[in-house]
Amino acid sequence: VQSTRIAVTPGDGIGPEVVAEAVRCLEILRAKHGLALEWTRFPWPSHAWHEENGESWPSDALEQLKQYDAILLGALGDPGPMDDPDRYLLPDSISLAPLLDMRKGFDQWVCERPARLLDGARQYLADERAKNIDMLVIRENSEGEYVSQGGRLRQGTPDEVATQMEVFTRKATDRIIRYGFEQARRRAEERVRDGRTRSFRTLDGKTCESQVCLVTKRNALRYWGDMYTEAFEAISKEYPDVATHHELVDAACMKFVQAPWAFDVVVASNLQGDILTDLAAVLSGGMGVAPSCNLNPTDSNMPSMFEPTHGSAPDIAGQGLADPTAMLFTTARMLEWLGRKDPTLAAAGKELFDAVAADLAENAGTQRGTHEIGQAICKRLEA
Amino acid sequence: VQSTRIAVTPGDGIGPEVVAEAVRCLEILRAKHGLALEWTRFPWPSHAWHEENGESWPSDALEQLKQYDAILLGALGDPGPMDDPDRYLLPDSISLAPLLDMRKGFDQWVCERPARLLDGARQYLADERAKNIDMLVIRENSEGEYVSQGGRLRQGTPDEVATQMEVFTRKATDRIIRYGFEQARRRAEERVRDGRTRSFRTLDGKTCESQVCLVTKRNALRYWGDMYTEAFEAISKEYPDVATHHELVDAACMKFVQAPWAFDVVVASNLQGDILTDLAAVLSGGMGVAPSCNLNPTDSNMPSMFEPTHGSAPDIAGQGLADPTAMLFTTARMLEWLGRKDPTLAAAGKELFDAVAADLAENAGTQRGTHEIGQAICKRLEA
Ligand SMILES: CC(C)[C@H](C(=O)O)[C@@H](O)C(=O)O
Ligand SMILES: CC(C)[C@H](C(=O)O)[C@@H](O)C(=O)O
Repeated sequence: VQSTRIAVTPGDGIGPEVVAEAVRCLEILRAKHGLALEWTRFPWPSHAWHEENGESWPSDALEQLKQYDAILLGALGDPGPMDDPDRYLLPDSISLAPLLDMRKGFDQWVCERPARLLDGARQYLADERAKNIDMLVIRENSEGEYVSQGGRLRQGTPDEVATQMEVFTRKATDRIIRYGFEQARRRAEERVRDGRTRSFRTLDGKTCESQVCLVTKRNALRYWGDMYTEAFEAISKEYPDVATHHELVDAACMKFVQAPWAFDVVVASNLQGDILTDLAAVLSGGMGVAPSCNLNPTDSNMPSMFEPTHGSAPDIAGQGLADPTAMLFTTARMLEWLGRKDPTLAAAGKELFDAVAADLAENAGTQRGTHEIGQAICKRLEA
Repeated sequence: VQSTRIAVTPGDGIGPEVVAEAVRCLEILRAKHGLALEWTRFPWPSHAWHEENGESWPSDALEQLKQYDAILLGALGDPGPMDDPDRYLLPDSISLAPLLDMRKGFDQWVCERPARLLDGARQYLADERAKNIDMLVIRENSEGEYVSQGGRLRQGTPDEVATQMEVFTRKATDRIIRYGFEQARRRAEERVRDGRTRSFRTLDGKTCESQVCLVTKRNALRYWGDMYTEAFEAISKEYPDVATHHELVDAACMKFVQAPWAFDVVVASNLQGDILTDLAAVLSGGMGVAPSCNLNPTDSNMPSMFEPTHGSAPDIAGQGLADPTAMLFTTARMLEWLGRKDPTLAAAGKELFDAVAADLAENAGTQRGTHEIGQAICKRLEA
């Protein structure tokens, strides 16, 4: 087998700390199973590059990363030296640029964030049914509110007008909705196989094993809201086995809190998906455990990118306090994704997922440092 | 005193049912205190108008309503006869039009939604500190994502492009931010008076009695995000007694779930405010109790509009099941607002609020119908 090659980009803040644990786990899995897996480290802290050339990453970063099969990212976002208020704060829009550049440059048009309340994860909701949360939020990741078109007229004056354009194409809409239905089917098959069936009612009284809920704000943002709705209705006809549902984003946020266990697959636009995934993450235990991935499922020449949902948390960086669990779940998901070409990687991904989940379940509520958690999981993998 | 005049628009679905209870309470309060208060009922169900002329309300609705000091709205949104699938579903964008028309037409540029977890209200969060939730979400209600500019190119084809423009002016930004700081001060004064002080830390280590948190998504939607941030920084200098804070909307939603008791006043854009207010509503007991108002604080010739946060709930309409609590809190807030001119109305508003809150506290968890709840509150007012 040709080796699968990963670009490891630790990034800023707690990024390098949690990535170190991920790399340790990868080393153990590689040695244990003789995986055909290689990785290269790109230590590109935003601040260093910014001081040199005003950018947050080298200008040929995308070309370099394109050589790899996947990118494993720690976290981006660097507010500068926190103890030196006289130096500039690196604006978010600079230090986060590589994130949005990669999503765009590699056309990672799916952002996938599964939410399950695993044993040992913190439960914010009072209702015990929260234990049954098992949803997959799929965010359109290539256009919409994030196209960065617009500007500021009469900037800085009392007459200023700022515009921000949202641009949605039917092509990107169709592909993300279809992806949602495919994931719903895949999840249904998995559940049936594992004997954990669920049941969703359609409007005409049928019962289905899975559901896709489309989220829009079509009563107020109606141009793309209507297009999304029409695309959803057309594509749903190809999936009569999947129940469909439509929520407005404000109601969806409410229902995420009231009955998150009622959702299966949720499809949303770039910004609304950003909001819903953060909400789903907290409902399933918080940023410490939430994995995330930015996928290009259609072009195998383009690397997908895997990053925890959390940010760089500069306030606790360098202290060994960050929870590496989200990073390790993210790494497991990356292996699973790479397993589409090399099944041994998928198996390793599952093994890593199980080890992290077992560690979480066993240590609920205990205070442990970054390395301590990583170490415990490594031990499990070595056992 | 010249009479204060209210336009009562029951609207659709459960609207007329909950409004009936509100009117009963108003009648009692008027008789009891000899209030100089009049109202006129405008029974404009969306469906009837739509069948006649394709609109959801009469074309001169705004002119008629402009004659009043305030509008008390039940709910809008009519999906058509639910038992007759052969007839059209009235699209949301038609039946909700009057809501957005009033906000625009009367320049109701503030949408205010207080969130307190009152005794007896349902608590969705596990953490007991949720009892301390006491925030006011202030939504910019006149522009931004809701300007309805945009369109659909090549509509219905695979090459379709839908655009939606967001337009933000510095003028509207300044006024909503300043309004937020004023509310923070007012709330601080109230708390100090009632001996319920709170304390918020500023970045430079000072402690303040109140806080304004600005929500944007400036790391992705940077044109207006930057303008909002600059306006916020400039205006905050006029309020050195108020602590400031900035959250990105995704993180704000997360923190609403993790620690909603840490927020005081929250200022957000039209769409992000829409999302945050629904979330705040559910965290403080859900739609059954959440009041809302659309205010024009600057032009006394323009009526403000008061509506519960909930919708028309067509699935339970006509059955006497809807909880009128949110409508009654909304009515109390209207009286309080109208009390700026006539203090007897403010006192009546407070009396109504207290009666509704007492009823809620006493009947936590019991199943009661619309009229039963209304009746109990009327009895309290008569006592
Ligand atoms: C950092 C930011 C630009 C990013 C986003 O909004 O997409 C983040 O919130 C995320 O969800 O990955
Ligand atoms: C009905 C809808 C257009 C409205 C809005 O988005 O403003 C509603 O959600 C609200 O919050 O009042």
